[in-house]
Amino acid sequence: MFNAQKVKNDCVQWIRDFFEENGKGCNAVVGISGGKDSSVVAALCVEALGKERVIGVLMPCGEQHDIDMAHLLVNHLDIKHYVINIKDAVDGIKNNLPFEISKQSSINIPPRVRMTTLYAVSQSHNGRVANTCNLSEDYVGYSTRYGDAAGDFSPCANLTVAEVKEIGRLLGLPDALIDKVPIDGLCGKTDEENLGFTYAELDKYIRTGEIEDLAHKEMIDKRHKANLFKLKLMPSFSPEI
Amino acid sequence: MFNAQKVKNDCVQWIRDFFEENGKGCNAVVGISGGKDSSVVAALCVEALGKERVIGVLMPCGEQHDIDMAHLLVNHLDIKHYVINIKDAVDGIKNNLPFEISKQSSINIPPRVRMTTLYAVSQSHNGRVANTCNLSEDYVGYSTRYGDAAGDFSPCANLTVAEVKEIGRLLGLPDALIDKVPIDGLCGKTDEENLGFTYAELDKYIRTGEIEDLAHKEMIDKRHKANLFKLKLMPSFSPEI
Repeated sequence: MFNAQKVKNDCVQWIRDFFEENGKGCNAVVGISGGKDSSVVAALCVEALGKERVIGVLMPCGEQHDIDMAHLLVNHLDIKHYVINIKDAVDGIKNNLPFEISKQSSINIPPRVRMTTLYAVSQSHNGRVANTCNLSEDYVGYSTRYGDAAGDFSPCANLTVAEVKEIGRLLGLPDALIDKVPIDGLCGKTDEENLGFTYAELDKYIRTGEIEDLAHKEMIDKRHKANLFKLKLMPSFSPEI
Repeated sequence: MFNAQKVKNDCVQWIRDFFEENGKGCNAVVGISGGKDSSVVAALCVEALGKERVIGVLMPCGEQHDIDMAHLLVNHLDIKHYVINIKDAVDGIKNNLPFEISKQSSINIPPRVRMTTLYAVSQSHNGRVANTCNLSEDYVGYSTRYGDAAGDFSPCANLTVAEVKEIGRLLGLPDALIDKVPIDGLCGKTDEENLGFTYAELDKYIRTGEIEDLAHKEMIDKRHKANLFKLKLMPSFSPEI
């Protein structure tokens, strides 16, 4: 059984310890999308450090249809926040590429520009950047290496989607944030439609090894194997010296 | 004794093995600054994969005073290359920040935009991004996390500056590239002036533990300790489940 109260308390303490060792008095800098992950991470940081030490960064690319959810979160937590539009930077890269860009290239530019922006905020505000990935997404590689997969500390990287949601409820976050269905801003599909299986199936498989639909099992295993490299340091050559 | 010939051959084989396992038939994408590190990495990739499978990417930010050195390299190796100016993207970030940016923030934006650009090239050209850091710089943290410290594979991360240079000579690279003194584009100082000790001292200390100047030893140890986190995965909270 998942003891949400205990895990939440342990995670809060872990965040305190991280800052004690790696940035005494520093501020947590959190990219706020308006989804459950960034909401829960920001709320955990507020409980760990106090709201004066948490900075939310909203980074729409042009117009973001659900930006009101991100505002809901920063208002709910009453944290300092910046809205920094990344469209100029994204266009600044795309418009200077002297070739036709692939779809995969195009998808991954905004998360990397957001990482760059978060660190620009962090390094001007005595900050440490929070990573907002969760275990379920990491397990199947649903993140951009050196983009949203980056950060200085990761509170939820070992918690499934269901566990993150439980902790969100415990932290008193609005249901609208916790239950918001993650939608790919690019094609308008939900994550689950993109992936081809549900987070409920994935979460259960991760924690118990059990899954009913064998075709889905195969899809998950294939994605997991193909994306494992994202969770590791890049390989480097070592000479015999 | 450092056997440059053997280490060079082993590294070439390691690059071949990396591509065999992690990207059969893929292209190596290398950011070309015109310094020794990117020159040696590009030359190693050419020897490992053939020049048709190496793409050089020159990424000046506005005007780059020594861009001719980068052109010298891609012409010498006769590899396909792109020149992609990152100034629009860098300005696109800086101009949208609603606060006064710190010097450290400002220094680290271009390397992260270059990483984003390299991956945009790579993901449109069936590529794998080469990291061009060397052991000496990594040892004292002279790199930008998620910027030039990023990549998919790292041929020189465990070779000192002196060793990288020896391999460069063996590969027949022009002396002008190998002996080019690394200069911080921002303040015009050499790396060694910025660091306060020489690479010769640092290289010897890394390989033998010996160093004469104890003040320099202290500076190196301090930098090494403070920057060790850059060489590791970010810490993440793990619940007891």
